[in-house]
Amino acid sequence: MIIDRLYEEIKDKGNVCVGLDTHMDYIPEEMKSKYKKLEEIIFQYNKRIIDCTSDITAIYKLQIAYYESYGIEGLKAYKRTLEYLRKIGSLSIGDVKRGDISATADMYAKAHFEGDFETDFITINPYMGFDSITPYLKYLEDGKKGIFVLLRTSNEGAKDIEYLEAEGKPVYYHVGDKLEEMGKKYMGKSGYSSIGAVVGGTHQDEAVEIRDRYKNMFFLIPGYGAQGARGEDVGKYLNGLNGGIVNSSRGIIKAYMKYNDGVEKFDQYTREAVLNMREDIGYEG
Amino acid sequence: MIIDRLYEEIKDKGNVCVGLDTHMDYIPEEMKSKYKKLEEIIFQYNKRIIDCTSDITAIYKLQIAYYESYGIEGLKAYKRTLEYLRKIGSLSIGDVKRGDISATADMYAKAHFEGDFETDFITINPYMGFDSITPYLKYLEDGKKGIFVLLRTSNEGAKDIEYLEAEGKPVYYHVGDKLEEMGKKYMGKSGYSSIGAVVGGTHQDEAVEIRDRYKNMFFLIPGYGAQGARGEDVGKYLNGLNGGIVNSSRGIIKAYMKYNDGVEKFDQYTREAVLNMREDIGYEG
Repeated sequence: MIIDRLYEEIKDKGNVCVGLDTHMDYIPEEMKSKYKKLEEIIFQYNKRIIDCTSDITAIYKLQIAYYESYGIEGLKAYKRTLEYLRKIGSLSIGDVKRGDISATADMYAKAHFEGDFETDFITINPYMGFDSITPYLKYLEDGKKGIFVLLRTSNEGAKDIEYLEAEGKPVYYHVGDKLEEMGKKYMGKSGYSSIGAVVGGTHQDEAVEIRDRYKNMFFLIPGYGAQGARGEDVGKYLNGLNGGIVNSSRGIIKAYMKYNDGVEKFDQYTREAVLNMREDIGYEG
Repeated sequence: MIIDRLYEEIKDKGNVCVGLDTHMDYIPEEMKSKYKKLEEIIFQYNKRIIDCTSDITAIYKLQIAYYESYGIEGLKAYKRTLEYLRKIGSLSIGDVKRGDISATADMYAKAHFEGDFETDFITINPYMGFDSITPYLKYLEDGKKGIFVLLRTSNEGAKDIEYLEAEGKPVYYHVGDKLEEMGKKYMGKSGYSSIGAVVGGTHQDEAVEIRDRYKNMFFLIPGYGAQGARGEDVGKYLNGLNGGIVNSSRGIIKAYMKYNDGVEKFDQYTREAVLNMREDIGYEG
């Protein structure tokens, strides 16, 4: 099961998920002028980050919105980055948050688990119901792929739908309870299922409750750094460090920008950002 | 307001939205062998359908999942089809159902309202809350773009979340009530807002109720044909025909496959499928 591979990666490398939400504004002029095509510039920037962090990063997450915003060229960079990660043996998440049903969901599954945009895990939006999740499950059966379904996110708007109280529990528990049940078919040796959940790292008050309720569920935790969650907050979701990964994007891929000599020491500052975050979360290696 | 343009198109052409969910299996060998590249094959197939239906089709909807499943080549066909529609003056919907927040939603808005994948309307998933909708609104302000937000869909799984009863009303009313309120800022002369909703054409029992509740909201109605909704069913959502568009994909783009001489008379059969559907819905043009 792919989830076991992720579990092992975490033991070796820590709980950091580096979010490659790459924007052209983050890329130093020195790197931009070296390459002609946008595809190449973005890919080379990602490669640079990957090369200096892959021994301390359990998994990389690519937010596809950034690549889509650059059109065909951007998506070529998305494709190449995923290919590169696969080549060097690093795991990846395509943060696509797709949510659709039947034949359409089949097409999304094909798009992101095969072909140009193949990745190890994708994120899924459950609004349309659980038949928007089932089409992906055939890829989980042989253990090669996994999914993270949006459960309870870290944004202000989470209250609008996710937190609505329905039939005695919040909407996100309706999602989670069903996922926990579906996940039993895809359990790894690690004790976690290849059906994971996206759970925002803020709202520490209910962190323990949500962690206890979904013992078999591995969490992808956004919200660290830029969105306000601290190491001690996200720690509560981690189940003794092995039940989740914590994503940081800007905190790492823009880390070099905080320093006058950031461009010269790009690798060092980027790496330090991952190491500091790893320590802040509580990894003792 | 773009919604007024759609309203006028409907008066002239009827309520049919042709869904270009193009799969290679639908394309006749004769067309496939004419072109080398997948991009060209899919684009030419779409163009053929558009050319024989554009005078009787208010708007075209492209389900991006189909194009994503063919990777970069597929997305080039997606781009070219949208460009072609714009060139001939036809409206388009990018059925992308994206749902994300803040900076990421900004990127999705940029991706689908500007640049390579520019379209007139996109569909949006509201699960993460209303801050996953606000980033798109700046494109509505000058009247050039519109959105359709998932409200109540036509699939079996709609019961899992959309129908959950929360604080006295179903989740989809929570979505709809807020959208109706947000939409007041983007009202067109037609009496409809550029914030529309996706409302499945099945479940006729509550069709009248939902139509009455959201008087200012224009509906994009899937579920016709392949998904089981009939003309009389979807009619109830249309508000005297001008308050919605009804999508059909396979019923139109695969129509020719039902006939022995389908390939020779491709244009005729495709056109007839649109005309029959238009009449079935109740258009008297």
